[in-house]
Amino acid sequence: MEGEETRRIAIIGLGLIGGSLGLAIKAAGQEGMEVVGHDRDRGVEGRARSLGAVDRTERDLPRAVGDAQLVVIATPILAIREVMEQIAPHLPEGCAVSDTASTKAQVLGWAEETLPAGVSFVGGHPLAGKESQGIDNAEATLFAGKTYAVVPAVGASEAAVDSLLGVIRLVGARPTFLDATEHDQYVAAVSHLPLLVSAALFSLVRASPGWPDLASLAASAFRDLTRLASGDPEMSQGICLTNRDALLHWLDRMVGELQHYRGLIQDGGEELFEAFAQAQAERDRFLAQGPPPASGSEAGPDVRRQLLSSFLGGVLAPRAGRARGTGRSGSGGESRHQ
Amino acid sequence: MEGEETRRIAIIGLGLIGGSLGLAIKAAGQEGMEVVGHDRDRGVEGRARSLGAVDRTERDLPRAVGDAQLVVIATPILAIREVMEQIAPHLPEGCAVSDTASTKAQVLGWAEETLPAGVSFVGGHPLAGKESQGIDNAEATLFAGKTYAVVPAVGASEAAVDSLLGVIRLVGARPTFLDATEHDQYVAAVSHLPLLVSAALFSLVRASPGWPDLASLAASAFRDLTRLASGDPEMSQGICLTNRDALLHWLDRMVGELQHYRGLIQDGGEELFEAFAQAQAERDRFLAQGPPPASGSEAGPDVRRQLLSSFLGGVLAPRAGRARGTGRSGSGGESRHQ
Repeated sequence: MEGEETRRIAIIGLGLIGGSLGLAIKAAGQEGMEVVGHDRDRGVEGRARSLGAVDRTERDLPRAVGDAQLVVIATPILAIREVMEQIAPHLPEGCAVSDTASTKAQVLGWAEETLPAGVSFVGGHPLAGKESQGIDNAEATLFAGKTYAVVPAVGASEAAVDSLLGVIRLVGARPTFLDATEHDQYVAAVSHLPLLVSAALFSLVRASPGWPDLASLAASAFRDLTRLASGDPEMSQGICLTNRDALLHWLDRMVGELQHYRGLIQDGGEELFEAFAQAQAERDRFLAQGPPPASGSEAGPDVRRQLLSSFLGGVLAPRAGRARGTGRSGSGGESRHQ
Repeated sequence: MEGEETRRIAIIGLGLIGGSLGLAIKAAGQEGMEVVGHDRDRGVEGRARSLGAVDRTERDLPRAVGDAQLVVIATPILAIREVMEQIAPHLPEGCAVSDTASTKAQVLGWAEETLPAGVSFVGGHPLAGKESQGIDNAEATLFAGKTYAVVPAVGASEAAVDSLLGVIRLVGARPTFLDATEHDQYVAAVSHLPLLVSAALFSLVRASPGWPDLASLAASAFRDLTRLASGDPEMSQGICLTNRDALLHWLDRMVGELQHYRGLIQDGGEELFEAFAQAQAERDRFLAQGPPPASGSEAGPDVRRQLLSSFLGGVLAPRAGRARGTGRSGSGGESRHQ
């Protein structure tokens, strides 16, 4: 059904994520689906065309979104609000708008402020990426098997959610529904704190007067732990500025944890061994579990309704009510969740 | 010359490092060199034999070292002193003893206290390893291209240093001469601090009540940054206890660096972007430089003498004097370094 509805996808911003999304959609070979790309950089548009990441590009931003059923804004996060303002007057009625940014509460706020009624915003965050940025590093398989957070705005239409889910399914990712605050708190811990720790570790050691000697002894431990310091600084800054409170919370807890380990080292007792042993055992368990079961994309409508209810609670009630009105997915399992 | 001198190597402790060392030596196919292995665990000795990591094993520790020209103690660091005490009465005159531990000052102290005159201790630290421990994870290529720190005790003979250098060359590693204090300070920054940061990050996030949700969103950033938390807890504890002061020094600086970033995030200005941009640029430069040029192993005696002088200063003077007496490497380049 989504395949029939989504005839044209506009991707705004053709960097690593936008370009990979285009490549992945094209690689899936969905018949009759057109990918229109736009980038502020004309050269990037040319590369996207020659790599086959888009069917065509459109220099004029309003025209790029004019007939789209789904618009995915894949620019740096700090550019998203401006893109929304520019496309808002030109979005077709019923159109779905999404994004790919690493934080969601701020983006949902911008969508609320700028997008017209009749357009649904469904935030998206593919938990996929790498240090090497730009269209030339784009890969059709970037999202395969990866978690893709889906954060619908209050009142987003079921059809708009389905439109994004269809694309997520197409590129092989695993959708997970979250609300914006949950999402931002969670990624602060597992994504943004690691980024900051990695950058701080590199900056600290690099600034040492002994750096040349340190560098000559730096093996895989140092290289791996500082990997995220090679990330795009614009993206890192955008993350920090749009997820500040959650990140500061986890940063303070990280300092506390390091000081806890400091105490264990000073004591020098068995507790230190126990801390390392527990971390090892728990991490092995974490790795052994593998990725979590897919939620929305693989499940039928009833199961998805259940997930939506349990994840989003009251936020989704109006939408679920509307969805029932359409007769698409009423009945059956619902009594289990009331 | 080293090949002729070193006829028998005893490896005490046949875990990942000891087993890999044996495999690498055997893979190099040095004619007439025998590798004798010993492990406190009889089953591990059997595995080492069946994997071809040793020519034979010897249950009796004194007999394992009895006729060796080089003994490499590859046990956990906290077991090294006891091994030294046990083998000390049985070491042949002129024998070289080395180790593979991650810290060196403490080990050199134990060697000074326990080993007899006529035996030279030359500390070693291959900067190679992985999370998966034990003989079953041993690899002949573990040391290939890796830095191998060489830390001779005061008064260690040139022949003993050469014996270890010969093995390092044989397994494809790159020797770097350091004194023990330098070594321990340096690895505290580039190896032990990353280990602690990695363990603390994992422990912190794992202890959160939201862990199941966090785990489902944890992508490569979290997995990579917490990799070292899966290391052997006995090794981690040994590192912390034998390199406590240097590690606490770097731990405090890491806390300071995180608090510096905290301030930048709160300010929210361009300085934050600059910090990320500088880290990215410097790390790219670090990666582009590749490993440092090899020192001792590829260089001739004159160059090595120069390196020894410049790295070790007065510590090596007695040894250099003795070496001159042997006529092995006097003359030539020396005037350049006096």
